[in-house]
Amino acid sequence: MRAARFHNREDIRVEQIDEPALKDGHVIVDVAWCGICGSDLHEYVMGPMSFGKEPHPLTGETLPVALGHEFCGRVRNPSAASGLKDGDAVMVDPRILCRQCRLCEMGATHACEKLGYTGYHAGGGYAERAAVKETMLHKLPDNVSLENAAVIEPLAVVVHAIKETGLTDWKEKDILIVGGGPIGLALIIALKAFGAEKIIVSEPAEKRREQVKEFVSAAYNPVTEDVVGKCNEFTNGRGIEVVFDCAGVPAGLEVGFQTLGVGGLYMNVAIWEKPMVIPVWTFMAKHIHIKSALIFSDEDFKETMQLMADGKLVGYEKLITGRIALEDIVEKGFKELINNKEEHIKILVSTNI
Amino acid sequence: MRAARFHNREDIRVEQIDEPALKDGHVIVDVAWCGICGSDLHEYVMGPMSFGKEPHPLTGETLPVALGHEFCGRVRNPSAASGLKDGDAVMVDPRILCRQCRLCEMGATHACEKLGYTGYHAGGGYAERAAVKETMLHKLPDNVSLENAAVIEPLAVVVHAIKETGLTDWKEKDILIVGGGPIGLALIIALKAFGAEKIIVSEPAEKRREQVKEFVSAAYNPVTEDVVGKCNEFTNGRGIEVVFDCAGVPAGLEVGFQTLGVGGLYMNVAIWEKPMVIPVWTFMAKHIHIKSALIFSDEDFKETMQLMADGKLVGYEKLITGRIALEDIVEKGFKELINNKEEHIKILVSTNI
Repeated sequence: MRAARFHNREDIRVEQIDEPALKDGHVIVDVAWCGICGSDLHEYVMGPMSFGKEPHPLTGETLPVALGHEFCGRVRNPSAASGLKDGDAVMVDPRILCRQCRLCEMGATHACEKLGYTGYHAGGGYAERAAVKETMLHKLPDNVSLENAAVIEPLAVVVHAIKETGLTDWKEKDILIVGGGPIGLALIIALKAFGAEKIIVSEPAEKRREQVKEFVSAAYNPVTEDVVGKCNEFTNGRGIEVVFDCAGVPAGLEVGFQTLGVGGLYMNVAIWEKPMVIPVWTFMAKHIHIKSALIFSDEDFKETMQLMADGKLVGYEKLITGRIALEDIVEKGFKELINNKEEHIKILVSTNI
Repeated sequence: MRAARFHNREDIRVEQIDEPALKDGHVIVDVAWCGICGSDLHEYVMGPMSFGKEPHPLTGETLPVALGHEFCGRVRNPSAASGLKDGDAVMVDPRILCRQCRLCEMGATHACEKLGYTGYHAGGGYAERAAVKETMLHKLPDNVSLENAAVIEPLAVVVHAIKETGLTDWKEKDILIVGGGPIGLALIIALKAFGAEKIIVSEPAEKRREQVKEFVSAAYNPVTEDVVGKCNEFTNGRGIEVVFDCAGVPAGLEVGFQTLGVGGLYMNVAIWEKPMVIPVWTFMAKHIHIKSALIFSDEDFKETMQLMADGKLVGYEKLITGRIALEDIVEKGFKELINNKEEHIKILVSTNI
């Protein structure tokens, strides 16, 4: 079959490879669409990072591997126990878990001692087919097409972040999103599904501000506008209650901490490349809480599927700003996202176009 | 009267000054004992920091001023409404609050827009007498003597930190205290009043480890011992649930984050001089919560008084490791604490010895 395999830094090759092997409990998924994630770009530019030189303890796989962990498709020959039929449209939960360690047992699967990912530690969705553990497949609701389902994975990441805040009553919350890129917009769409109505975005790129504008109360440019003053005005001097950092850069954190009111929450959803330095005095004086979220749990994924089925994730199709063929993945996918990142939210890849 | 006034950096003078003026609602307290706080040392070495060049908005005072905010004494001529009698032994809540701003109204008095301190923004306890707002006086319980009451103030700070964690059921919690100095030991004593039993201390100074040993499960030297491994063993691999940082140094934060289990809480109680850099990957992978606490609320102070009255703060007298006369405050107080800090927990000052 055809697949785009990651061999090494800046070395992704579209090539003919063997069909995926079927281990116990695994089934074949004919991939429909697979999203390119920021973490794939990190691997391409700075990696290999998520890969050891040793075979992964659960899959035994090493490089080269077909990347792609945000994918949907049609299941082939599922077991009777699965509740699925041959050809059903499914979304893949790409986590590879031991289900045996103390952390898996606690439900903290994001910290599984042997955590892996389909699309990193086993062949993923930049391919015609992938072998996936049957229990990690979710039948698509009738109102969700294979055309758009791949974004369920990044939406599950932000649903997890929202739930990890521990907060409820989102309708009343004054929220600042730092960074209006793919995670920022996915988060906004999910927050609105949770009832949020008062959302401000801080994003320097004009194109991105335009993309998020229809979903939020206001979007400001932190380079030319006084985001702190605007937030202060917006909240009648009370300050923001929750900042979601979807940028992971020092200037964004600084603005976030300045906008927060006393007892506010700073929730980090970003991967940081530079050191994360806390402005201690502001942190202490305002009794700011700092949290972080990564990946998602079984429950989060199911809840995201349900929000999708219920039509609550309004506008989620707008996360998709490009569709390309597998053959073009390097030039029109990875390089385009690296060189013109502000032009895109999410690019989907398929072997069928 | 005699007082030790702070004029400028490294300039504290014991001198004859005017009696404190009585403003509305204020009464005179004959100071019995006043503790030297770490923040006083910060002012002496690095200040003036807590003082503007402008008069304080609530007190109108500027430098020079008698420092000292951890003090008890006897009240003179209280009002009938106060419930106090002339000569009653009282502890002073040193906060100076506007009681009018939005934050005071919310109960977030630590963030009062005009926050000041008796002992910084009005004459404090390094003097024969101080003028204090009558409503900020608390009658000492019968079982607490003026000899020891001054440590109620630092105990209120740590009671606040414990309550700000939002946690309960302290008996079951695995706790690591980073730094076994004055705040660390006060915190340990308060945690035990809240029922904590499983406390580990990381402290490089041998003398300090000796001082805290009788109160805790174990005290380790992070320079020569594997604190992370010891905590892992202590918790059967689960990791620590709550780290209290009472040191405020990068190496301590590093150890704290490494010992924490998934979902653990890092509570900062320290003033930081160096940048506070978060180890982002550990923070994200373990979903660590980060909080901070500063000062205390009305409720915290009352609760601390009550814990004292109930005999729950077992061993609190051991916080006091030295008593000196006001005349010796610079040499035997400030300089001694700066040059031989590991020899001491808390030094109390009095004009009566």
